[in-house]
Amino acid sequence: MSDLHPLLAHRWSPSILDPEHTLDRADLETLLTAARWAPSSGNSQPWSFLVTVRGGPGHQALLGTLTRGNRAWVPQASAVLLGIAQTAPDPDNPEQWQQIGLHAEYALGLSVAQLTVQATSMGLVVHQFAGFDRAAAATEFAVPAHHRPVIGVAIGRHGPVEDADPALRQKEARPRVRKPMEEFVFSGSWGTPW
Amino acid sequence: MSDLHPLLAHRWSPSILDPEHTLDRADLETLLTAARWAPSSGNSQPWSFLVTVRGGPGHQALLGTLTRGNRAWVPQASAVLLGIAQTAPDPDNPEQWQQIGLHAEYALGLSVAQLTVQATSMGLVVHQFAGFDRAAAATEFAVPAHHRPVIGVAIGRHGPVEDADPALRQKEARPRVRKPMEEFVFSGSWGTPW
Repeated sequence: MSDLHPLLAHRWSPSILDPEHTLDRADLETLLTAARWAPSSGNSQPWSFLVTVRGGPGHQALLGTLTRGNRAWVPQASAVLLGIAQTAPDPDNPEQWQQIGLHAEYALGLSVAQLTVQATSMGLVVHQFAGFDRAAAATEFAVPAHHRPVIGVAIGRHGPVEDADPALRQKEARPRVRKPMEEFVFSGSWGTPW
Repeated sequence: MSDLHPLLAHRWSPSILDPEHTLDRADLETLLTAARWAPSSGNSQPWSFLVTVRGGPGHQALLGTLTRGNRAWVPQASAVLLGIAQTAPDPDNPEQWQQIGLHAEYALGLSVAQLTVQATSMGLVVHQFAGFDRAAAATEFAVPAHHRPVIGVAIGRHGPVEDADPALRQKEARPRVRKPMEEFVFSGSWGTPW
């Protein structure tokens, strides 16, 4: 990873988050501005975010949709966002769908990655999670049927590690691994390593 | 955008790319390493990349799948990648699908965004494009049925602008715009501005 930009090399998804840390509105605005400037097909920007901060509107409701494993750590995050993608045509604006097509979830990924880079540059950590009840979240927050809750985005400050749940400490101590390049980078034809 | 990290504030998708510029293998490896270290659900890494460099294996075949509008500028890119997501279970490894679920295109977005940040830090530009024949690309590169070509990723150096096609110059001169925050950032309930 030595050639990687530090904002990418230092990014990780810790599970021990400081329950005393709070994120103010200005910082959250900067994070969402990073998300906002992501590219998208035909500049369709087919993403939305529901913002909750610890103890604020919607926070408990969002935590209520978590799978059991995520209940151990997500509540300590300073803010938890719900990332939402437009996955079907808007009945009131069907032409717009031509630009979005099947790219809304992909575009949301670009957007959240930009938010994550910005967060890393501000000394924050971002841990995304897929383990929550999408249907319950959609109902809770009145998400229209042509949009789909896709991802949870927990944002906070790492630590304190010393008095953390041993299971979370163990989770964080796992070595970070990725597939070797030859398994997913091809040249000329699928399966032929580049 | 004043608070944005420069790697995000300076990112854009130019259409005038230097046809003399070439990308060497080491730089491409660094870019793909940035993509490789993206997070994904259960660390499933459900993405693959087909790499072509101008004049190299697969390059003409990939250009052959472009829609007309993209034929004017993509060929000048130093490298064109095809971003591929696993969108259905692998018949040889069906259990793995539990981790990927519906998140492959989203994860590919995170991955390409990381590549883009790295490229920006190296003075390169990335312009993604959705306008290509996915089915033709899948056939051309023998992409298995449970994977889907999602995105084209053109990488190069911006310029020279002076002797560029006026249509491309006009395209680049368009003001960069995004939806106002209140249209896509909500609190408590869908549609309620944060």
